[in-house]
Parts: sequence; C-alpha cells; structure tokens
Amino acid sequence: MNAYKKLMSHTRETVALKQVLGRLNWDQETVMPRGAAPQRAEELAALEKVLHARRTDPQVAEWLAEVTPKDAVADAQVYQIRRSHERATKVPADLSAEIARVTSLSQGIWAEARARDDFAAFAPTLGEVLNLRRQEADALAQGDDRYDALLDDYEPGESAANLTGMFAAMRPRLVALREKILGSETTAPAVHGPFNEPLQMELAEACARAFGYDFDFGRLDKAVHPFTSGQGQDSRITTRTSPDEPFGCFYSTIHEVGHGCYEQNVSAEYLLTPLGEGVSMGVHESQSRIYENQLGRGRAFTGWLHGRCQSAFGDMGLDGPDSFYAAVNAVNPGYIRTEADEVHYNLHILLRFDLEQALIRGDLEVADLEDAWNARFKADFGVAVDKASNGVLQDVHWPVGLFGYFPTYSLGNVYAGCLFEALKADVPEWETALARGDASPATDWLRAKIQTHGALYRPREVIEKATGKPISVDPLLTYLEEKFSDLYNL
Amino acid sequence: MNAYKKLMSHTRETVALKQVLGRLNWDQETVMPRGAAPQRAEELAALEKVLHARRTDPQVAEWLAEVTPKDAVADAQVYQIRRSHERATKVPADLSAEIARVTSLSQGIWAEARARDDFAAFAPTLGEVLNLRRQEADALAQGDDRYDALLDDYEPGESAANLTGMFAAMRPRLVALREKILGSETTAPAVHGPFNEPLQMELAEACARAFGYDFDFGRLDKAVHPFTSGQGQDSRITTRTSPDEPFGCFYSTIHEVGHGCYEQNVSAEYLLTPLGEGVSMGVHESQSRIYENQLGRGRAFTGWLHGRCQSAFGDMGLDGPDSFYAAVNAVNPGYIRTEADEVHYNLHILLRFDLEQALIRGDLEVADLEDAWNARFKADFGVAVDKASNGVLQDVHWPVGLFGYFPTYSLGNVYAGCLFEALKADVPEWETALARGDASPATDWLRAKIQTHGALYRPREVIEKATGKPISVDPLLTYLEEKFSDLYNL
Repeated sequence: MNAYKKLMSHTRETVALKQVLGRLNWDQETVMPRGAAPQRAEELAALEKVLHARRTDPQVAEWLAEVTPKDAVADAQVYQIRRSHERATKVPADLSAEIARVTSLSQGIWAEARARDDFAAFAPTLGEVLNLRRQEADALAQGDDRYDALLDDYEPGESAANLTGMFAAMRPRLVALREKILGSETTAPAVHGPFNEPLQMELAEACARAFGYDFDFGRLDKAVHPFTSGQGQDSRITTRTSPDEPFGCFYSTIHEVGHGCYEQNVSAEYLLTPLGEGVSMGVHESQSRIYENQLGRGRAFTGWLHGRCQSAFGDMGLDGPDSFYAAVNAVNPGYIRTEADEVHYNLHILLRFDLEQALIRGDLEVADLEDAWNARFKADFGVAVDKASNGVLQDVHWPVGLFGYFPTYSLGNVYAGCLFEALKADVPEWETALARGDASPATDWLRAKIQTHGALYRPREVIEKATGKPISVDPLLTYLEEKFSDLYNL
Repeated sequence: MNAYKKLMSHTRETVALKQVLGRLNWDQETVMPRGAAPQRAEELAALEKVLHARRTDPQVAEWLAEVTPKDAVADAQVYQIRRSHERATKVPADLSAEIARVTSLSQGIWAEARARDDFAAFAPTLGEVLNLRRQEADALAQGDDRYDALLDDYEPGESAANLTGMFAAMRPRLVALREKILGSETTAPAVHGPFNEPLQMELAEACARAFGYDFDFGRLDKAVHPFTSGQGQDSRITTRTSPDEPFGCFYSTIHEVGHGCYEQNVSAEYLLTPLGEGVSMGVHESQSRIYENQLGRGRAFTGWLHGRCQSAFGDMGLDGPDSFYAAVNAVNPGYIRTEADEVHYNLHILLRFDLEQALIRGDLEVADLEDAWNARFKADFGVAVDKASNGVLQDVHWPVGLFGYFPTYSLGNVYAGCLFEALKADVPEWETALARGDASPATDWLRAKIQTHGALYRPREVIEKATGKPISVDPLLTYLEEKFSDLYNL
C-alpha cells in the first residue's frame, strides 16, 4: 500500500469512530436514562481519547509527509486529514478528554438550571467549561487570536474580524427594517389552539418528506433543543412540539431537514471519509435556513402547509392562506433565538457573538454574563429579559463548550441569501412545484450545487461556485426587505 | 502508580468502550434507520478493533506479570482482566474485526429471510458466520474442544460434557411430565382479545416497576427479539407486543427485568470495571427466569396481574384469578422457544445445543441444518415445523454468531430452581408481598445473594454460596412436577 492508501484506511476507521461518538451524543439528548449521565461521561471521554490518539498518531504524520495526492479528490482528503491531525497534535490528550467529560456532565446541569431559571446554579460549571475551552484555544492559536482559533473549528478559514465587518454592514438595514415593521399599523394574525402534539409530529414527518428527507437513512425524534446528528447513511433529525402553536415544530423540522439532507446527499463515494460530511457550520446553516425560510416560509409552501394544517387542526383562527402566511412570518421581538423571525434572528446572533468573544478573550467574567446578556438584550430588543430560560440559559451551545459556533448561523443566513438568488434564476419552476408540496426542483439544485460535494471545496468556494458570484450580504437583506415590506405594507 | 492501578485505569477505559459497543447494538435493534446497516457494520468493526487492541496491549501483559493483588476484590479484578487478555491475544485482530462486521450485516439479512420464511436466502450468510466462529474457536481452543472454547465465553469454566450429563438427568423427568400433561383431561383456558398494544406497554412498565427495575438507569422499548443491553447506570430492556395475547409482552418484560436488575444492582464500587457486570450467561438467566417463572408466573403475582389486566382489558374471556393463573401457565408444544412454557422450554434448548455442537464440530453442514432442525423438532415435540420463522430462523443467536450460548439458558433454569428453593426457606414473606405486586422481599434477597456481587465470584460459586448447597437439577424438576401436577390434576 502507498502512503495515500494507508492514510485513507486509517482515517476511514477514525471517521467511523467519530460517527460512534455522534451516535452517543444523539442517544444522550433523546433516549438516555436520566441516571446514566456520570457513566456516559466516562464513555465519551474514553472514546474521545481513542479518537485523539488516532488523530495524533505519529504514523499519520509520516504518511502525510510521504503522500502525493494524484487528483483533486485525493488532494482534498489529504487537506482535511492534515487539518485534523495538526489541530489534534496541538491539544494535549488529557485536555481533550477532560473537555469531553466536563461538557457531557455540564449539559445535565444546564438543563436543570434552565428548568429552574437559575443561572447562578450553572455559572460554576460554565466557568469550568469556558476555562477548558480557553486553554484549548490557547493551545490552538499559538499566539494568534484565541477566538479565531475556536471559530476555525466550525468555519475553516473564517475570522472574527471579517465577520465583524459583514455583520456591521447588515446591522443598520436590519434595525431599520425592524423599526419600520414594529412601527407599522399591520399586525400579524395569531393562531388559536390547542394543537394536538402527536398530530404535529405526523405533519412534521410530512414536511420532512416534502423536502426530500429520506427516512431510510435517518429518523425524527423529539429533543429539548432540536439538532441533527450523524453523517452518510445515518443522519438523524429532531424537533420539538408545543400545544400552543405548531409552527415551532414544523419549522424546526424543516430546518433540521436542511442539515440532514446535506449529510444524506453527500456523494456516496465519500462515505466514512473526511469529505463525507458538510464542509462547515456556515454552509450547513445555509442549507437549513434556505429550506426553513426562503423555501419553507414562502407563499408557495405555506399554501400547501395551510391545507394540511386545516385538515389536522381546523381553521386555527385564521382567515385563509394569506392569513396563514402572515402568521408563519409574524415579526415579534421575542426572547428565544430559535423561535425568532427572520428579521430578528441575526440580532440574536450578534448579541451572542459579541458576548462570547468577550468571554473567550477574558473581557467578561462568567459571574457578570447574565447582567451583560440582559443589558444587551434590553438595548437591542427593547424589552427586559424576564427569566434566565428566556435569556442566558436558553441555548445549549455554551454549556457544551461551543464557543465560536454562533456567528456561523448568521454567515449561513448570508450564504442562504446568495444561494436563493441564484436558485431562482436557475430553476424557475421551484415555486410552482413547492406549491404542490414538492421541494425537489429546489432541493435537487442544492444537492447538485452544494450537498453532493461534501467537504470537497472550501466553504466560501462551494458557495461562490454555486452562485457564480462573490459572497455578499445584499441578496439576504434585499430578500428580507422585499418580503417584509410586502407583508407589513411598508 | 503501581501495576494494579495502571491495570485498572487502562481497563476502566476499555470497559467504558465496551459499554459504547453495547449502546450501538441496542441502537441497531431498536431505533437505527433501515439503510444504515452497511455504515454501522464499519462503525462496529472499527470499535471492535479498538477494543481488541486494548485487550491485547502488551502493556497489559507487563502489568499482569508485575501485579500482586492485595485483597479478594483486586484478585477477582485481575483474574477477569487476565482472562480477557488471554482470550483476546489468542484471536487475530483481523478475525475479530471481520466477525464484528459480518455479524452486524448478517442480522439484517436474517431479519429479511425470517420475514419471508426463506432459510436458503440466509444459509450462505450463516455459513460465513459459522466459518468465522469456527476459526475463532480453533484459535481459542488450541487443540482442546472447539465447542467448549466458545461456551467458555458465556459460561466460564463450564463444559459441554458436564452440561450433557446434567441435561441427560433432566430429560426423562421433563418428557414424562410433558406426556402426562398432554395426556390429561385438563385443558388450559385461552384468552380472548384483541389486546390494545399501547395498554400492554403501560402494564409492562407496571410489571417492571413491581419487580424493582429502575427507570432512572434504564428504559423499556420494543424489539423483534427482546434483549437487555448495558451495565451499571444504563441497563436497557426491551419487549414485544402482539394484539392476540398480552402474556408474551408481560413475561418478556419481567424476564428482561431480571437481566436488567442484575446489571443495575451490581455494587456501585465495581462500576466500569470487569466485576461490574453479571458473571455469566447462566447466572444471568437464573435471574431472568426466577423473575419470570418462579416469581412472575406463580399464584401470588398472577393474582395481582389479573387485577391489573381486568382494569385494562376486561375479563379477557377468563373466569377469575385461577383461570388467569392456568392461562399464564398453559402447556402447549409450540414452535417458538421464547414463547415456550416452563415444561417445554428446556426441550427447545436441548435441540439447539445438539445442533450447534454438530455445526461447530463439523458434523452438520449449514445446507442440512433446516432439515435437521425439522426432523428433531418433529421427534421431540410431535408436530412438524410449518415455516422457517417457526423453526430454524426463529432465534437471533446463530445469525449474530452466538454459538455456545444456548445451553446457558437451561443451566440458568437449573440455577433458578436452586435459588428458589433457598429463597423460600430464607424469606417466608416473599409470597404475601408478591400478591400485593411487591417483589421486593424476593428481589432484595436475590440482590444481596447474587446481583450485588457482579463478577466477583465464579458462576457456580455464587450460586452455591447463595443456596449453601451443591448445584442440582432436582429443585427445578421438583418445582415443575409439583406446579404442573397441581395445574393439570395429574
């Protein structure tokens, strides 16, 4: 065997073991017994240590030194393996294992603190998680920016400085749009329930199928915070239900379907290799958001969904499809990011992006985080946070150590804006099909342009290849301004 | 660190990774998407290879050479680690990985062949599994008996010759009892359904709680072939339902509760160590069978269960608690081992024990297995097998390579007989409590005598310590003769 074959054989097993780790995480958030958390933490730490040892294996360094990739695919595989090896060799094995152990336990502590709206009960644990991730960031950055070192895990090649510039260009237009909407005389209709939760799950499954999610290679379960887990032949999605309104369930589902389809649709030739998964969180989010928003919350699909909802729930207190469309797209300055409308969503991200940079760089203490959150929220959203579960405790990301992850959500929205502009030009029939509950013209285009490539190209590269243009915040903002001006008669 | 501490630290991680493997198996049989089987096979093979490398790690051999255990617990830990290391070093890593890969795939092929009653469709796969296990047996036996080498995995220290003697002593008394029952004029009443399956699952959960299963450290799901998976803080059970009769659901549940409680009740000091699990399949089966049969199918508990069933299903076509007791204990020469009554059960095992010895020793070809099964079944049970799913394809054991496992079921029944005799003498209040749906006097005794010890003692040793007597088939046979003579007015 030549060096490339040895490298790929070794890596294939590493990727398979990484899938196992993902399966444990899925299990933990959906079906794991309550009392199993301490034991599970040790299981995760042991597996993390195995993965770390494989990634840092000196043989990998030797093979990497010898290898001469003979085509673009081999070149991309080697690039990803080298990236993973270099990252892993910078972080001590004990630190990796400790992070796995602590973040596994911290999730349960967070869930309990969140249920009791008690940030103080969670703060020491968050401090421990933050401290470990800062140690890791320092090991990775080797003198460069500590926050960028973490960001690079989720969005390779991206920098906080670049994102800050991009977000600065978005903010005035988003704020202006938000103020016009909230100052307008139009109010969105509200739905009236209750909405049977098993029926919501049935309709969620129908939505997933409409968007091309393949249940032979995945499943749909409930979770407190919906997520997608697993690559290739086993990419599972989750959603949540509330008896008061059904849209959270449907649009969480369609959002996760975007993630799940990205994973399911990667070319089978990349299965269990470094190219066999989505290339970055930002590109991932572009898929979930375009499925959820540009496609899922448009007039075409809401027309179809309205018919299904009428059969399941009656008139829901709405006048008809226009009223349903307005209800789905209601703009309200709510507390919860995952329930936020398209106009407010990125303001939530900006808040977290700034706070987590301050935490990681040491400009903000965990003890002061809740106050900082609440002050910033009041300033940006005009209302005071009423309880920690509506504020600083709402998201699972920081509790499990995901610092540097949040900005990829807004980046994904920007990418989704670019992709939607190109899709409309390339696939004129997308909308008439979607009105029949058939997303395939749109999702086939996304599959061919983005999803099938897995991690073959760099994040910005795959988007720019798909659109034929440089990345810009304009398409997203123009889409939002047009859509909501129409909805709110601005 | 001294050699013992190093050995235990290494082993603790190995045991944690073994738990992960168990979790993947649970996932595969309960929730895994259909199309994920090929990828899962690679995941299992990769993890199996990691475990094999850890067990055969030359450092383990060095530590084992140096170690001087300072008490009985340390001595038992070292005994188990040495056993595992010696077993693993005898089997080539590639063979272990190939067995994991093939048996993962074969389960899906078996399930499809079983659904179509097509043994020929499964035979090539079974041949492959058998061939691999024979290679493994030869590597383990090193010239000794090939079948005993496999048996030793499930029942350390046991031999086919010893079991053959034990089974020979049981067979005439079982056959005589069976013939008297089938020749008697008493017929057991039958239940009339249909029986709502979600209600069955609710009652199954109530049964599990009555027998002390702790849902904080486990869960109950459905599976084609019920099983228990996982140790310590995460021991999960499964059951099945049929709309035609509810007893299969309840007694599969109580059976698995016996297994699950054995794992949940091992002393917490042994968590994630080699002592932190049941010591053998035979002792495991003693717990599942005493929960299911001696306790679960006795007059006391069936009286309680009858009340719960009446509330759930009405009179079920039965006259009252005596009729319910008779229906639960109906003796019929059925096809399916897991549905067999207590009288026929061990005849099913004898059939499999003889056939699998012939397969492993090379006296029977896979191509001839279905005919051999059908001929033997006709001879032992007096009826012809009507379809493969009622015959050779009914059990998951051979498809996943579990040769040498079946006889531990009968051994477990013998152990359960011994334990029940001692329990009745030691805990006279067991029966009045059970009549109130409270198994705790009986299960507390089993916990203290058997379960808490985990793998501290050898299999026969822990049973004989509990009963204060040598192992004998007499208590089981006497129990059966008395119970069924009463039921069938013999």
